[in-house]
Amino acid sequence: MSRFRFQISISLDGFVAGPNPSVENPLGEGGERLHDWVVKLEVWRRSHGREGGETNASSALLEEALDGIGATVMGRNMFGGGPGPWGEDPWNGWWGDEPPFGTPVFVLTHHEREPLEMQGGTTFIFVTEGIESALERARDAAGGRDVALGGGADVARQYLAAGLLDELQLNLVPILLGGGTRLFDGLSQAEAGLEQVGVVEAPDVTHLRYRPAHR
Amino acid sequence: MSRFRFQISISLDGFVAGPNPSVENPLGEGGERLHDWVVKLEVWRRSHGREGGETNASSALLEEALDGIGATVMGRNMFGGGPGPWGEDPWNGWWGDEPPFGTPVFVLTHHEREPLEMQGGTTFIFVTEGIESALERARDAAGGRDVALGGGADVARQYLAAGLLDELQLNLVPILLGGGTRLFDGLSQAEAGLEQVGVVEAPDVTHLRYRPAHR
Repeated sequence: MSRFRFQISISLDGFVAGPNPSVENPLGEGGERLHDWVVKLEVWRRSHGREGGETNASSALLEEALDGIGATVMGRNMFGGGPGPWGEDPWNGWWGDEPPFGTPVFVLTHHEREPLEMQGGTTFIFVTEGIESALERARDAAGGRDVALGGGADVARQYLAAGLLDELQLNLVPILLGGGTRLFDGLSQAEAGLEQVGVVEAPDVTHLRYRPAHR
Repeated sequence: MSRFRFQISISLDGFVAGPNPSVENPLGEGGERLHDWVVKLEVWRRSHGREGGETNASSALLEEALDGIGATVMGRNMFGGGPGPWGEDPWNGWWGDEPPFGTPVFVLTHHEREPLEMQGGTTFIFVTEGIESALERARDAAGGRDVALGGGADVARQYLAAGLLDELQLNLVPILLGGGTRLFDGLSQAEAGLEQVGVVEAPDVTHLRYRPAHR
């Protein structure tokens, strides 16, 4: 059964991005430290066309997160380029000519746009019919493999509140950001009960896996 | 070397108490669920004069947290009874005639009060000279054993910001409280860098241990 899963790095004080995000610094002040644990991994570097890196207890989880994904759903903010209509010379994502997805990526937006085919198997497909439609189309495109939620926090909250997520993995990083974007703001237990399904301790991060209780 | 340590149960969205705390419901709405994992343990029940209970991966940690403690420091809010002068018929704590501490407990307050000797070895000593003085007196009283910080969140933040805590254990409970008291509000990395030192997965809770990086 194809699962819809989301993993995100989060600070000890609950932020998934630091304060004052900008185009130059999309993760906000200090936010790039949320990803220190992952960018040093060999498996991450390989998936981004880079050499070197280390292997530790995080590697198997990341490998699993990368493997078996047939499609991705993400919010417009995550795709980037600012809000509003796409304009004459539209933004093509943060990831250059060959994004690391290698699958269809369904981007939630209020503004219609033709699909954007990139190198390496990634096609960005713009969905204006809402989160359920995006997930349905992603499941179809994934052909039995899992669907990843790429982020960001706002879209994740919508999927959690709607009870549509099958697995949530928090990569808990022992830093305090002091401000920024909170993952769980405005969500209450009534909307998102969570069952703890597994914990992996790794260098500078703890991976916590939860299943929404209704699943 | 005597350590000064703090452990607290925290929701996935970062709250150590739910919204709208009251004398009847000091942990706020839904906040008592933060302690579901502990009140069912045999070791907790025994330390509170009750029978029965279960033993699981949390038990050894709790036993360690209870053993080897020679004194406790807590804030006035944690001791309870509301703010302001103590009055004619002062509050004697939440814990009845025989509190479970069995050691001196140093209560931070702005209002002087004579020490209060309870049954079972607990004496509440009221400290008006601030957090450093309270810790110093607690270390002296502990006679080489560890000093526990009893809470609450506000006092914990003060000790974290002052760099005086040796160990922080978060008992992360997979619930969302949606509001209440946040442990880390107003703390930033500059004040409290944390190093991950150990993780224990247990039923319905994950125990995360950190050491302030300056230690």
